[in-house]
Amino acid sequence: MTTLVFLDPAHPAGRVADATVPNILVTDQGLTRGDGIFESMLAIDGEPRKIRAHLDRLAVSASTMDLLIPDAGVWQAAITTALTAYAAGAPEDSADHGASNESRQCVVRLIATRGPEGANSPTAWVTVSPVSASLAAQREKGLAVLLLERGYDSDIAARAPWLLMGAKTLSYAVNMAALRHAHHQGADDVIFTSGDGLVLEGPTSSVLLAHVSDDSGVPLKRLITPHLDTGILPGTTQGALFAAAQEAGWELGYGPLTPADLLDADAVWLISSLRLLAPVTTIDGKEIGTAAIRAELTAELSALLATTL
Amino acid sequence: MTTLVFLDPAHPAGRVADATVPNILVTDQGLTRGDGIFESMLAIDGEPRKIRAHLDRLAVSASTMDLLIPDAGVWQAAITTALTAYAAGAPEDSADHGASNESRQCVVRLIATRGPEGANSPTAWVTVSPVSASLAAQREKGLAVLLLERGYDSDIAARAPWLLMGAKTLSYAVNMAALRHAHHQGADDVIFTSGDGLVLEGPTSSVLLAHVSDDSGVPLKRLITPHLDTGILPGTTQGALFAAAQEAGWELGYGPLTPADLLDADAVWLISSLRLLAPVTTIDGKEIGTAAIRAELTAELSALLATTL
Repeated sequence: MTTLVFLDPAHPAGRVADATVPNILVTDQGLTRGDGIFESMLAIDGEPRKIRAHLDRLAVSASTMDLLIPDAGVWQAAITTALTAYAAGAPEDSADHGASNESRQCVVRLIATRGPEGANSPTAWVTVSPVSASLAAQREKGLAVLLLERGYDSDIAARAPWLLMGAKTLSYAVNMAALRHAHHQGADDVIFTSGDGLVLEGPTSSVLLAHVSDDSGVPLKRLITPHLDTGILPGTTQGALFAAAQEAGWELGYGPLTPADLLDADAVWLISSLRLLAPVTTIDGKEIGTAAIRAELTAELSALLATTL
Repeated sequence: MTTLVFLDPAHPAGRVADATVPNILVTDQGLTRGDGIFESMLAIDGEPRKIRAHLDRLAVSASTMDLLIPDAGVWQAAITTALTAYAAGAPEDSADHGASNESRQCVVRLIATRGPEGANSPTAWVTVSPVSASLAAQREKGLAVLLLERGYDSDIAARAPWLLMGAKTLSYAVNMAALRHAHHQGADDVIFTSGDGLVLEGPTSSVLLAHVSDDSGVPLKRLITPHLDTGILPGTTQGALFAAAQEAGWELGYGPLTPADLLDADAVWLISSLRLLAPVTTIDGKEIGTAAIRAELTAELSALLATTL
């Protein structure tokens, strides 16, 4: 079941629509040109998580795209309307605190397109839908990952703003093709690398690695993620985890990271709003850390992350 | 006015729909991920031009994207239905051979997406609509063009098929952003260059240059376009023009081309199915050839191209 609410000046709290029937014109530039932006966030027990971080990133994406979208308050009203409608239509047990984690969670998507050709007015909507069961399974089972080249050098973002690096656009065909390529090779997911050999991000996630001892074997707790200068998307979940981990005594670091750094880490994760922390078991077939360390660190960091949700 | 016809197994000739009302689900992956492909072609007096070249390229795009789409015959039937419906609904004079070129022409778009999430069946449709007046004006007035970096090296296509180079996908946000960037700088259009400094293509066109004398001033007639190995889209109109020009005694050449080659040419054009041959007046502010040579060569090649339409 998908609940759908359009942002509509005539309906300040949002206009509820039926997602099972067509609602979009064939001339919408989100459809004909992938010309739009989106965010996906988790909601738990009807509360959207990290809503401020997602609305901030949506605003950055809109600005990068020269797209005028409704203000944060209008999005918040529509999100509330959509979550309320979703809860009203959901099976009984999903409002029950005794229910499984999955049934207490749902996905909130925010989408804004440049609107129909010639109309000069964006199309904007919110959907709420169940969390895919396969995402939850990935947290448990871990991910076999391929390194795939993204084609861009790591210094491209600053000098070529028209490439829209760091904006979360609807033009995700390459991200989807990279995932299909990985699946055809028997892998689960992808970590993109730059033309100049740096680690970037996953097609739908940020990359995170941990070290629990230094080169001499002295214990430490260090989390590292690639630097944003490489043109990657700022991860809202990575940001939330870093804040919580720092309070818990972890050192934080920011790349440049190379594939060798990933292979050398005690653990590597793909981290995103819906999947949360999914441990990487292998990269190009080489095991990362050990099953015991991966499990221990994933449990520790997932508990930290849960305090932020 | 836009005429809309869906490809639909229940309607072998295509299902006519009303393009002014919503026809697409918000969960369609063409919309949520730019996950689909398209073609745009010209029709004159109700006859689609280069239909075989466009259907062949659509099939290549589909194959590159692992997208199962209807066969060419199904597309052809829907195109015929759409053009017939468009002619029936068009103002009287558009069927009149005494009418202006513009009113005798229309745009046929073919679009196929991966369909709604979870449905495992593509959404495919044809639209017919008028040619934008601004495109015709560009043929007359010429184009001020900016060189912008596309971010990819020219050898990426062969080693990174997941980047979908050479497929005409709906993920055109970067192409649109490059055009906006040019417009903000007072330019009309863009020629993309590779990270290693080669000329690629326009955001919605192929690049073509002409020499009418060699380095010693000896007359010749040579047309050159960038080599497809660079990962660019094979231009159907460039292909048609090359065939006609060869018969008319032009030599044909294929890049690699650098920006210096463009500046050194007697004329440069952006060439595409809808705009046809649009002469480039300046590149990064530097004039290409002279107004007289541009006009003469544009007239000569446009006449050749017209024989293929």
